[in-house]
Amino acid sequence: MNAQSCFWIGLAGALAALAFAFRQRRKVLRFSEGTPQMAQIAAAIRKGANAYLRRQYRTVARIFAVVFALLLLLAAFGRLDSWFIPFAFVTGGCWSALSGFVGMRIATAANVRTANAAHESLNQGLKVAFASGAVMGFTVVGLGLLDISIWFHVLRYGAGLDAQTIAHTMVMFGMGASFMALFARVGGGIFTKAADVGADLVGKVEAGIPEDDPRNPATIADNVGDNVGDVAGMGADLYESYVGSILAAFALGASAYSGEDLAWNAMLLPLAIAVVGVLCSIAGSFLIRTKENTGQRALLGTLRRGTYSAALLSAILAAPLTYFILGLEHIGVYLAILAGLAAGCAIGYFTERYTSASYAPTRNLADATETGAGTTVIGGLSLGMKSTAAPVLIVGAAIILSFLAAGGTLSTDAADYALRFDRGLYGIGVAAVGMLSTLGITLATDAYGPVADNAGGIAEMSGLGEEVRDRTDALDSLGNTTAATGKGFAIGSAALTALALLVSYVDVVKVRVPGTLDLSLTNPAVLVGLFIGAMLTFLFAAMTMSGVQTAAQAIVQEVRRQFREITGIMDGSAQPDYAACVDLCTKGALHEMVLPSLLAVTVPVLTGIFLGVEAVVGLLCGVTVTGFLMAVFMSNAGGAWDNAKKYIEGGSHGGKGSECHKAAVIGDTVGDPFKDTSGPSLNILIKLMSTVSIVFSGLVITLSPFFLG
Amino acid sequence: MNAQSCFWIGLAGALAALAFAFRQRRKVLRFSEGTPQMAQIAAAIRKGANAYLRRQYRTVARIFAVVFALLLLLAAFGRLDSWFIPFAFVTGGCWSALSGFVGMRIATAANVRTANAAHESLNQGLKVAFASGAVMGFTVVGLGLLDISIWFHVLRYGAGLDAQTIAHTMVMFGMGASFMALFARVGGGIFTKAADVGADLVGKVEAGIPEDDPRNPATIADNVGDNVGDVAGMGADLYESYVGSILAAFALGASAYSGEDLAWNAMLLPLAIAVVGVLCSIAGSFLIRTKENTGQRALLGTLRRGTYSAALLSAILAAPLTYFILGLEHIGVYLAILAGLAAGCAIGYFTERYTSASYAPTRNLADATETGAGTTVIGGLSLGMKSTAAPVLIVGAAIILSFLAAGGTLSTDAADYALRFDRGLYGIGVAAVGMLSTLGITLATDAYGPVADNAGGIAEMSGLGEEVRDRTDALDSLGNTTAATGKGFAIGSAALTALALLVSYVDVVKVRVPGTLDLSLTNPAVLVGLFIGAMLTFLFAAMTMSGVQTAAQAIVQEVRRQFREITGIMDGSAQPDYAACVDLCTKGALHEMVLPSLLAVTVPVLTGIFLGVEAVVGLLCGVTVTGFLMAVFMSNAGGAWDNAKKYIEGGSHGGKGSECHKAAVIGDTVGDPFKDTSGPSLNILIKLMSTVSIVFSGLVITLSPFFLG
Repeated sequence: MNAQSCFWIGLAGALAALAFAFRQRRKVLRFSEGTPQMAQIAAAIRKGANAYLRRQYRTVARIFAVVFALLLLLAAFGRLDSWFIPFAFVTGGCWSALSGFVGMRIATAANVRTANAAHESLNQGLKVAFASGAVMGFTVVGLGLLDISIWFHVLRYGAGLDAQTIAHTMVMFGMGASFMALFARVGGGIFTKAADVGADLVGKVEAGIPEDDPRNPATIADNVGDNVGDVAGMGADLYESYVGSILAAFALGASAYSGEDLAWNAMLLPLAIAVVGVLCSIAGSFLIRTKENTGQRALLGTLRRGTYSAALLSAILAAPLTYFILGLEHIGVYLAILAGLAAGCAIGYFTERYTSASYAPTRNLADATETGAGTTVIGGLSLGMKSTAAPVLIVGAAIILSFLAAGGTLSTDAADYALRFDRGLYGIGVAAVGMLSTLGITLATDAYGPVADNAGGIAEMSGLGEEVRDRTDALDSLGNTTAATGKGFAIGSAALTALALLVSYVDVVKVRVPGTLDLSLTNPAVLVGLFIGAMLTFLFAAMTMSGVQTAAQAIVQEVRRQFREITGIMDGSAQPDYAACVDLCTKGALHEMVLPSLLAVTVPVLTGIFLGVEAVVGLLCGVTVTGFLMAVFMSNAGGAWDNAKKYIEGGSHGGKGSECHKAAVIGDTVGDPFKDTSGPSLNILIKLMSTVSIVFSGLVITLSPFFLG
Repeated sequence: MNAQSCFWIGLAGALAALAFAFRQRRKVLRFSEGTPQMAQIAAAIRKGANAYLRRQYRTVARIFAVVFALLLLLAAFGRLDSWFIPFAFVTGGCWSALSGFVGMRIATAANVRTANAAHESLNQGLKVAFASGAVMGFTVVGLGLLDISIWFHVLRYGAGLDAQTIAHTMVMFGMGASFMALFARVGGGIFTKAADVGADLVGKVEAGIPEDDPRNPATIADNVGDNVGDVAGMGADLYESYVGSILAAFALGASAYSGEDLAWNAMLLPLAIAVVGVLCSIAGSFLIRTKENTGQRALLGTLRRGTYSAALLSAILAAPLTYFILGLEHIGVYLAILAGLAAGCAIGYFTERYTSASYAPTRNLADATETGAGTTVIGGLSLGMKSTAAPVLIVGAAIILSFLAAGGTLSTDAADYALRFDRGLYGIGVAAVGMLSTLGITLATDAYGPVADNAGGIAEMSGLGEEVRDRTDALDSLGNTTAATGKGFAIGSAALTALALLVSYVDVVKVRVPGTLDLSLTNPAVLVGLFIGAMLTFLFAAMTMSGVQTAAQAIVQEVRRQFREITGIMDGSAQPDYAACVDLCTKGALHEMVLPSLLAVTVPVLTGIFLGVEAVVGLLCGVTVTGFLMAVFMSNAGGAWDNAKKYIEGGSHGGKGSECHKAAVIGDTVGDPFKDTSGPSLNILIKLMSTVSIVFSGLVITLSPFFLG
């Protein structure tokens, strides 16, 4: 076992994933787009999504250029660990963007094909939608492994670095991916929800026309939003999570096994787990085949069979893998991998319990609509807050278990405390990789939801009839359930990876700072950092939420203007100006995404300069803990409101149009930015702040003595 | 300067405060209750409030008895630092309850007198209402100082303990007060909001009768709620804050100046600051006199003149006091006091900026009602989250400044780091006392709001006419503004006191635990504790919110039943059964308050036993930081929704009955449990968990080795 294995195994995994993605893409494209009208609508959506992403990338590119220049400058002044970092920053950003872009391309090709296939049968619809999800899932995984392998090769064989240096350089490579992901999530999230809220407020409420009615000028923008937010945003996001968890485990592995031959092996293990996960995910995908004319329950069973089989297979294969790579002495690391996988599944289960209308919490939320919108909102907020308990306990248990299993000890007086401590931390890092190892297939079941949603929109706009819409709705609601599992993995891994990155940060600064670091919680600087970090989470959530509000207001004005000025929209004799709404959403989203994203980058640096590195550690913990809680709270509250509304639309509490339904719609309006803009962005925020802190630690340590004396 | 001064100065301050409170009470009672009908309504409210508090105290007494027995048991097994703790637990609880009870008694006497006096003029109304607020403010302060002085005397002259032992024993005395305060805040908060929401949902929305209409069966319960929640709950709460801050400063002072003659002086200083604060508050109260027929602006100016003069006078007198007690060498402590006072005022200012309709944020929230309830709710949530930024930065600055000013250093390599560290922490403790020193008068301006609110209810029910109602509304809205300042002090001091208690906890366990404590943030146990603490805040907020929901649902059913079964309510020929609603609220509140309160007590103990004392430190930090943020967020969002609604009722955006108004009412319904139940309870939660951890540390340290090995 040596460095070469890392490269070759990573490359093989990458190629397998990309090949499978390519195969699934061909499968999708073999389906027909249906009627010319459908193709035309799909083209409009594709054009809008393309246009948005192009402009988003242009905006982000400018910001990347500035940061790149800054990084070069820091490198020139010797304040950066390596000259490779500025370039890795750019590649991370590009590949994260590419992940999102590929996802968007396939989603905008699959949406119309899903609508057309659903015209035939539910199963055909599922086939197209799931295949398109698989394209994205495996592209994300493949690109991630490819990025890691190539850079590994450059650093090892181009620059000839040793294991420790490679690991500690590569952990900084996540910054570019996180930065891009944050822009994609926030920008896409604001776009999609501004269009959604704007379209609903004027269309449904004021003009009284149904959702996705072609007479609504914002309807194309709404469908574009699904693709740029839920698809492209999610792709960039999970690329970042995946790569981040592997790189963090690299760094912890190299620290824990420093000075030993095992260092390469400790780096190889997370990579090998990821590659095994790819293969298991591919195997699981083949299990997702159904007989014609099965019901929705059976479909859900099929999807679950695929994901759980992949996870189980990974869990089994990880045992010989760990034994083979680290040896029997370190077999405890295997338990850490298991803890990660189990925690991901458990969080997914609880997410579903709190957000699916099959269980009591969401049913009770539907009951709360009986007494109006006020109680509906309070009910959803308290449901979301309560739902944080289980994930926290699960993540807490996973942290402690993986730490202890990998050799860590909580008894500070143990003789080899420091070494065992590092070993334990490596366990936490590996647990995060274990959790995300089957990302290929979990993301596939996650990403097909927005495709189904879009298919429904196209079916509605092209008048495919009630039956087709019912089928796409069934697919969509199925997607909501599987997405819960996906979210469990994303959010759980974010917490574990953030901890791993935190430790890397401390490792990095310990080397640079003269004297001892007092990272204990009684240090006022640490506490103030903790306060600021937690506050930043609130501020970030607030800014992204109000970004949606501001952008939505502009859409409302525009839709009202079109209804007023373009005569004949309502009787169908004139076409609304769809592009104007897409354009407004684009401008709004790009405008509103910049400030919160920059906050994530500047605050850790400023905190470090003015309050010292101890405060930065507090800051990172504050943002990790509060960010995790807020992300769970907001995602689950939003999901529950959405499903309570759907449950009522299914005929309970008076059904569509009743007072209860109106209250539920208000709840859902609050939930929209919760679950699709602010909540998922927080995952990225916590990791971005960690990598930013690591990368800019040289700058901070140089400048802070001027202020701290 | 010696121990005797502590006793005599504390006692003198206590007696001065109580004498002034008594004088104000006589002043209130000299006013007339008005017509027999008014007296009858007031009697019904008083009876309901009395009945609730009696039952609340009975319920709490049972829980206190259990904890008392447990504490005795621990003392018998030598797991408690002192035999005095169980008894101090009981006295703390009793006196906190007494503070609330006295406040409720005077408020239920003053409400009807305020209504009657407002019949005469706005100024007469203010006079009665403010005097009743002063009764409560000075009673709270007086009882707090009396409790401290008496126990000090017992420990010093009865038991003959030294300064360190006294200080470290007395810091545990806060537990009883905190425990009682939490029950009072949560129980009272659930009562008041359940009655309010229940009355509104059926009365205003379904039956279409105005607020406080005597035909509404829940209207007396609603008015009882103001007294048991906003008055009695607040009294118990601030008693706890006041006593807690002084006791925490005692403990830090004794640690920082241990082994020196200065120890007594370090304990005397916080007490002396508090006593000077009492005197300055009394002086400030005399400034609150207005000429007849001044406008609302002038009234606000008068109230502010009183509070700011008291604060300024305290700030000035603290300088010679510090010099006299600690000497020139430690004069930096004076800056810490100033930092505390200034931070309290600054938080109050920003609270007002975010919640008053005179400023942009609340105006913008009113604008958001134009696009419906959904955007109103999102707007309020994001306003509340944004409003956390300023208080966090202010508290952060106060922590760092008071720490550095009192001698602390952030440079871990300083030679006398440990000593300077303790000195700095004492600065933080003293800053909290400084912030609360003028509590007598700030609480007076805070507590008169609910009295005015109640007066409005009585005016409405007894048909005193539009003009009187307008005047009581003016007083009420003035109260909202001054209450913002009061909240700033309460919440800011909670954060500082919690830090002081945290340090006391670490001091206590360091002595007991063999080996070293690893309190750094990279320790997984600390991190998991941090996660659990933050989660507990969310869970607690959710439970108290849904407690309101559950209790309100019962009221809704009951009011509907009465409208249905008691014929003649609507035409006024039959009286509704007010007592039934009061009874239901009582039962509901008592039932819902127990679980969240017990959570606060059991979780720190369980965390300690299963994860060790390091995890408890993480837990306390998690609950302090997240609790502070959530408290600010919830209070400010609630306040802004309330004031946006009032602003619209004042004629903007279509005024009362418009679509905007309906949206604003929904926002306010969400805000009610935010600002009056969950938000203010969090203040107490964070301190209760700290004192519980300290008191039970002996038990935890005995049991945890069984689980941690």
